[in-house]
Amino acid sequence: MPRDGETSPRTATLLMKCPDRKGLVRSIADFISGNGGNILHADHHIDFETHYFFSRVEWEIDEFTIPAGEIAASFRPLAEAYAMEWRLRFSDEHPAVAVFVSGLGHCLVDLLHRWSIGEFPGSVVAVVSNHLDLKETAEHQRIPYYHFPITAQNKRAQEAKELELLSSLGVDLVVFARYMQVVSDEFIACYPNRIINIHHSFLPAFIGASPYARAYERGVKLIGATSHYVTPVLDAGPIIEQDVMRVTHRDTLEDLIRKGRDLERVVLARAVRLDLDRRVLAYANKTVVFD
Amino acid sequence: MPRDGETSPRTATLLMKCPDRKGLVRSIADFISGNGGNILHADHHIDFETHYFFSRVEWEIDEFTIPAGEIAASFRPLAEAYAMEWRLRFSDEHPAVAVFVSGLGHCLVDLLHRWSIGEFPGSVVAVVSNHLDLKETAEHQRIPYYHFPITAQNKRAQEAKELELLSSLGVDLVVFARYMQVVSDEFIACYPNRIINIHHSFLPAFIGASPYARAYERGVKLIGATSHYVTPVLDAGPIIEQDVMRVTHRDTLEDLIRKGRDLERVVLARAVRLDLDRRVLAYANKTVVFD
Amino acid sequence: MPRDGETSPRTATLLMKCPDRKGLVRSIADFISGNGGNILHADHHIDFETHYFFSRVEWEIDEFTIPAGEIAASFRPLAEAYAMEWRLRFSDEHPAVAVFVSGLGHCLVDLLHRWSIGEFPGSVVAVVSNHLDLKETAEHQRIPYYHFPITAQNKRAQEAKELELLSSLGVDLVVFARYMQVVSDEFIACYPNRIINIHHSFLPAFIGASPYARAYERGVKLIGATSHYVTPVLDAGPIIEQDVMRVTHRDTLEDLIRKGRDLERVVLARAVRLDLDRRVLAYANKTVVFD
Amino acid sequence: MPRDGETSPRTATLLMKCPDRKGLVRSIADFISGNGGNILHADHHIDFETHYFFSRVEWEIDEFTIPAGEIAASFRPLAEAYAMEWRLRFSDEHPAVAVFVSGLGHCLVDLLHRWSIGEFPGSVVAVVSNHLDLKETAEHQRIPYYHFPITAQNKRAQEAKELELLSSLGVDLVVFARYMQVVSDEFIACYPNRIINIHHSFLPAFIGASPYARAYERGVKLIGATSHYVTPVLDAGPIIEQDVMRVTHRDTLEDLIRKGRDLERVVLARAVRLDLDRRVLAYANKTVVFD
Repeated sequence: MPRDGETSPRTATLLMKCPDRKGLVRSIADFISGNGGNILHADHHIDFETHYFFSRVEWEIDEFTIPAGEIAASFRPLAEAYAMEWRLRFSDEHPAVAVFVSGLGHCLVDLLHRWSIGEFPGSVVAVVSNHLDLKETAEHQRIPYYHFPITAQNKRAQEAKELELLSSLGVDLVVFARYMQVVSDEFIACYPNRIINIHHSFLPAFIGASPYARAYERGVKLIGATSHYVTPVLDAGPIIEQDVMRVTHRDTLEDLIRKGRDLERVVLARAVRLDLDRRVLAYANKTVVFD
Repeated sequence: MPRDGETSPRTATLLMKCPDRKGLVRSIADFISGNGGNILHADHHIDFETHYFFSRVEWEIDEFTIPAGEIAASFRPLAEAYAMEWRLRFSDEHPAVAVFVSGLGHCLVDLLHRWSIGEFPGSVVAVVSNHLDLKETAEHQRIPYYHFPITAQNKRAQEAKELELLSSLGVDLVVFARYMQVVSDEFIACYPNRIINIHHSFLPAFIGASPYARAYERGVKLIGATSHYVTPVLDAGPIIEQDVMRVTHRDTLEDLIRKGRDLERVVLARAVRLDLDRRVLAYANKTVVFD
Repeated sequence: MPRDGETSPRTATLLMKCPDRKGLVRSIADFISGNGGNILHADHHIDFETHYFFSRVEWEIDEFTIPAGEIAASFRPLAEAYAMEWRLRFSDEHPAVAVFVSGLGHCLVDLLHRWSIGEFPGSVVAVVSNHLDLKETAEHQRIPYYHFPITAQNKRAQEAKELELLSSLGVDLVVFARYMQVVSDEFIACYPNRIINIHHSFLPAFIGASPYARAYERGVKLIGATSHYVTPVLDAGPIIEQDVMRVTHRDTLEDLIRKGRDLERVVLARAVRLDLDRRVLAYANKTVVFD
Repeated sequence: MPRDGETSPRTATLLMKCPDRKGLVRSIADFISGNGGNILHADHHIDFETHYFFSRVEWEIDEFTIPAGEIAASFRPLAEAYAMEWRLRFSDEHPAVAVFVSGLGHCLVDLLHRWSIGEFPGSVVAVVSNHLDLKETAEHQRIPYYHFPITAQNKRAQEAKELELLSSLGVDLVVFARYMQVVSDEFIACYPNRIINIHHSFLPAFIGASPYARAYERGVKLIGATSHYVTPVLDAGPIIEQDVMRVTHRDTLEDLIRKGRDLERVVLARAVRLDLDRRVLAYANKTVVFD
């Protein structure tokens, strides 16, 4: 697809999953081509263990005979016939993102720079934090900063306020950019597979606190970082992206932390981009990533 | 796709390229699903610079209403309507492969072991060499070894004999596993995009002779290996796969050569497998790799 | 160091560890240079948590005034003064290695090829197995194959015979090249940090059985392999080397196993080479690797 | 070395190169230990092709009997006896760095954030640019921004002013963070091996302009980035660090550029840190990197 602003055609993208059945690919192709759509990308995957079908199709809609506002309604009967879960997205939509942080700013600085140069679709509508450290960083980029200090006592109440804020801003995706709080199951339930976290280890190794210290202690020769959707089980949600970096006996714990920052930035940014491009489908606690 | 022998269904795979046109995906899906085929994998790619369409579709043929022997003929009209180049392959076919070597055996030993444990489809029907060094290696695996010593004088004549041999054995793919001879354009013309070479650098750096010595001299911090289809221009054919490995000032030239062997083995083996699985389409001196 | 056979000088290598104290580097340099030795490599490391000193020094001994046979005795007083653990090795020694295997041959084939082309010092004096599958592979390379079938009943008795064999062959290093048996603490105690195992995951993730199946189940985006010294705690010994490879949702469990073989081969081979070159020092369940 | 601010001892670091001679390691150890210095790190390397000796030694100077201000003078006789090139550095020095940029800000944003969280020693005393695009970025971090627009006519004169500025600020290291100008040999001669450039390819592939476009055209499967010291020959100076990233046929040229930014940032930052930590020695158009 031509990606430079001037020439990109307006497109629609369907992201679908359902039990596999004969004729699925054909039915989808018929719906799009039969209504004058020009398919730009089509990627299908079948999981042969669960017999599930996953698909991402993107097509030009300028000559599509169904108006953009009616595509969802027109597609619904087909989707229901196959018992699909599906999402429809248009290339000119701008999903709203909220970034949660605590004291460490490397991921936030990196994400905001990426948005500022147009690397991601959508826009950051809020930086939310339990601390004030990164207020200036956000405001320098003209992003509103919301401060919700968290204590054992006020946690539930503060989360309620955060959810209210996210709802009022129409937030589509929440990013935990080294946010050092475990959020409640209720919070997570409001954003199923819509919260991306970065964990500073190659999961499932070193789940939980202080992964670098434990990696150092164990004497590993590689450190890692993992971005995943947040589920109620700590660090156990569907993995979107992982990467690693080589370390040696010469690296102190502080070196691991420094090297790890380079991993965290990149692994989180890749996951956010893949999600906002509607390239990720979660299922069975895994992900299908159409890259 | 279930890959363990007992449960794998018999499949057909179409590999197609043609100028992009509206309705292509649908026409292909119609041909397969309309004749009772169950699509297992479908991957499409459009190159927006050349406006070319590339596709790989694999489907179960047990309930396909067109008999295997007639699929090609049935598909031809559609292919011609879209001016396609295409290849059809069945999962129970066994492509014949010839491996060319000189004195270095690491790639050959590796490839033959992979075949012996069923990692690749097809089978090696000949090891061809201008030397005798690896005769025992081939024969230990019960592969016929053909010795064609090459001199400036006999080169043309020997190549003719090699081509005769390949033709008589019905060879589908030729693999240059560190074969230290530059073959003639005539030889290459007989196997367009059917000869895979391994070059011991990350092309296009260090084209030609002694890439490790030149990498050492230049002081690079990464060495590489590249597998590509052979074309008349030296080391300039479509790249199938590349990989690199870290080196330091502590590495001597001999260390580079040793480390490089690990790259060469793996990069060549990946390319051979991708090709034999009919996952590679060459165009415009590049490749589309449906992995 | 010039590594091509003809010109390499004869060298001695000291591998030392002890509590850190002022003057250590100087004392070692004095011992070598003061006796006419020309230092070729010297690498020191201090662990600032445990305050331990680690060192590897290699020097030419052709003009060394202490005869090779007396170096150990001459060095002992210095070593004792600093409470060192140390090992002395000469470049013309040939350590004897025993490789243990079960049914999978990819690591064995790879290791034996490396020895055959001179990639490792020393030589394989025995292949030991609880199965007969790889007998021909070993014997093709003219390595004696010893078959010790293991049952719950005979395990202790068979291990005793294995130890007897290793002892009679003067084995310095034992390599578990996908050996599918957990050996007893008694066996391990005979070869402290002298047994190298390859585990098919990035430890400490997926300790124990079926790591690929569990990686597949968890939906990781990277698979790994780890070589480590064997200690009584399963898969928890000092890590020598690790590496990873990218996988996607398209990879079946069988693909993970296939890709993993490439990791296992290389990660095990690197560890064996580093150990035989006397570049590895184990301490505090970690390793210092002077590469 | 303990790296957390409070407990780190004050250290001196010597970086040395000279023709290899017997007794070098011992002479250096004698100089340091003989004057009460406690050696923390010592790394030596001999290049056996050129017979050159390279060394980096770091020691605590709190109990060193030679005052910091006199160490250089005391070491000079030894250095001269061995015809050394050498540099002495103290852990509490703060080298001044100037960063040159043009229109692209990703490397600058990244470098300034690293300085702001203490990842690098020293400090940025100037951002120099031929454009105004990144003025706000620099000034937000309170770094003076100097604007020197360059035309074919004024180039020599502007360079003279830049050199005057650098000299007046006592700049030790110049970083070209995607600075889109080729500077004159005279400029380079003022900072031999003191200018670090980031080139957006795995050199020596794609020297010169538009490396991503040429990588895209060639159909490579890996893109790279290279940091090197600037010499009068374009993109041919000693390489400090390189890294690569995987690309596929699905990646457009714009994707290559986006992925490449992640490489450029990290590869440049690693080189700057290694240099400022006095871990890099250039020789014979290569580098020795004591990491």
